[in-house]
Amino acid sequence: MSAGGNPVFLEIARTDGKARAGGLHTPHGTAPTPLFMVVATAASVKGMTPAQLREARARVLLANTYHLALRPGEAEVGRLGGLAAFMGWHGPTLTDSGGYQIFSLAKKRRVELEGVRFNNHIDGTELFLTPERAVRIQEAIASDIMMCLDECPPAKADRAAIGKSLTLTHAWAKRAKAAWRTSDRQALFGIAQGALFEDLRRESAECLSELDFPGYAIGGVAVGEDTEDIRRIVAYTAPLLPSDKPRYLMGVGTPEDIICSVAAGVDMFDCVMPTRHARHYQAFTRRGKINLKNRRFLGDSRPIDEACDCEACRSVSRAYLRHLSVLGELMASVWITIHNVRFYLRLMEDIRAAVFAGNYAEFAKNRLDELASGGE
Amino acid sequence: MSAGGNPVFLEIARTDGKARAGGLHTPHGTAPTPLFMVVATAASVKGMTPAQLREARARVLLANTYHLALRPGEAEVGRLGGLAAFMGWHGPTLTDSGGYQIFSLAKKRRVELEGVRFNNHIDGTELFLTPERAVRIQEAIASDIMMCLDECPPAKADRAAIGKSLTLTHAWAKRAKAAWRTSDRQALFGIAQGALFEDLRRESAECLSELDFPGYAIGGVAVGEDTEDIRRIVAYTAPLLPSDKPRYLMGVGTPEDIICSVAAGVDMFDCVMPTRHARHYQAFTRRGKINLKNRRFLGDSRPIDEACDCEACRSVSRAYLRHLSVLGELMASVWITIHNVRFYLRLMEDIRAAVFAGNYAEFAKNRLDELASGGE
Repeated sequence: MSAGGNPVFLEIARTDGKARAGGLHTPHGTAPTPLFMVVATAASVKGMTPAQLREARARVLLANTYHLALRPGEAEVGRLGGLAAFMGWHGPTLTDSGGYQIFSLAKKRRVELEGVRFNNHIDGTELFLTPERAVRIQEAIASDIMMCLDECPPAKADRAAIGKSLTLTHAWAKRAKAAWRTSDRQALFGIAQGALFEDLRRESAECLSELDFPGYAIGGVAVGEDTEDIRRIVAYTAPLLPSDKPRYLMGVGTPEDIICSVAAGVDMFDCVMPTRHARHYQAFTRRGKINLKNRRFLGDSRPIDEACDCEACRSVSRAYLRHLSVLGELMASVWITIHNVRFYLRLMEDIRAAVFAGNYAEFAKNRLDELASGGE
Repeated sequence: MSAGGNPVFLEIARTDGKARAGGLHTPHGTAPTPLFMVVATAASVKGMTPAQLREARARVLLANTYHLALRPGEAEVGRLGGLAAFMGWHGPTLTDSGGYQIFSLAKKRRVELEGVRFNNHIDGTELFLTPERAVRIQEAIASDIMMCLDECPPAKADRAAIGKSLTLTHAWAKRAKAAWRTSDRQALFGIAQGALFEDLRRESAECLSELDFPGYAIGGVAVGEDTEDIRRIVAYTAPLLPSDKPRYLMGVGTPEDIICSVAAGVDMFDCVMPTRHARHYQAFTRRGKINLKNRRFLGDSRPIDEACDCEACRSVSRAYLRHLSVLGELMASVWITIHNVRFYLRLMEDIRAAVFAGNYAEFAKNRLDELASGGE
């Protein structure tokens, strides 16, 4: 199967309202959509081996270009067979471009027309990331999906600053596309920005669509704005992106955010929440989050979530996880990571089933109610 | 199968010189011997889930009475089904008695005739461990094999101090045996002490043998003495313990120590080395230890040990593990733990095969030479 020779493309099997379900085809295999990609920042999911990720039915892992370029360097990753082989995963991968670090490392970088200068957060040496260099690094890393370098401004910047930033992001997108030499084996996705301004979001979606990328991301979301604004801008932006291409909402989010964004027509997600929260002993359940360090779990012989089929829920109790959490044992975060990742992936399976069943709106309402019920 | 109604007993299938191979029967299953027990101090092997331990063919886990009595408390472990169920393991378990903490927490305890008073290392409250209380705690924890409370003196103590300590250990052993109420489902092992004095080791072995325990440990080894002394005293002591009962060398040791101790007739081992070394990026190979943080592993596409069948060696390269180690990524120690534990368990499989083949002396010589070769 192929679509105009693209190595990465979306096959839409079913729609329900604006929600879509199907498969994302990549050179390393096909992933069912809507899809949650598990974050492996430095080419490692903190807490899970590839075998455990496969058991949890993870399909795509996401690694970070900025971090890998610094350590171990893209040449080392390339020498060792590219990202998927390097981390023993052998499945599909996506790399972000370093654009997010323009936001998250704001004090350590300077944005110029040509690119962005980072004072590397490890040793202070300079990393000069241009749109061309970001593509070149990702080509060496050999992910299936590369992302254009974009400028990700904080949500609270004013209209003039966002407009200026958008012009830069669009110029960089054009340069990235021109630099891309591996269209036979890697896709390059464009990233629409525009913060909370609908007209700028529209301008960005249109400008990028004209550049004809194999996929499109919505960037600049979950960078300081509130939930309502996230929902509004995603609902506004997603339908403006080409309907036959994958739509990827970067860095989002909570189970609730994902449920709402699928309704807007988003196909792909990633977020550090399931893994990062686990390291703070926070576990996701169908009735909301719980912190397993809490004293109320003393003697609680139930699994984290009685409806869950993960290795943690099949093996150990909340009381046991409380014990490990109180002690700060390594395995506390590992067990909770195993659960949280499976929780997210299972949510996507349920979402997909609901789209196929044609009752997504009802599913979304019920699931949001359940998540808000906080019964346990 | 049973031996005089004991729930835990050793079946010796083959001997080769003093080396023995067979099976240790317990209420939670049978473990092939010679046996390495993986350390799960606080009811958790740092870095591996029970499923991963089963894949590595671990058979018995060892947890620590002192630590579990403090947190979460033996009543909580008991309420949650006992140690094996608590940690989702469901296989055989052994608990030490707290005697080792008399050595390792020497500044926080006072030994009396009645027992040992610990200033709990968490909050300073007192834990008064008597031989009877140590048995009671282990009965609540419900391990398959309990250990008598003993006094473990430092190897460098003088003869008079060791002699005095031995009298106490023997009195405590007698009291522990009298306190033991679960002989239908739990075994209680005696612990022979005597430091580096052969006459005291003999006295201890004889005294404990008369008490007729279901199994015997050699304690007070690897507490500050050098390798030669360890080998000498183990070779001297092991044959003095009843030949039809399991012999357990506590807390030992390196692969070399284990190979030599099996030749002396030891059946059971435990040690923190495979798990603790992993957290310092040290991996065991057939040619000795390597530190994966070392720069020389840059670009090294080989697995940790080309002869190994563990998940790490089947999945990732030394170069990848160096990358994770340099970053201090959680998964560096997890991957190396997976390897080191399998390395130890595979060593035991090889040891056992050599005993069955009747060429243990040759096997031991070759393996010791290989471990000393340091070729990689």
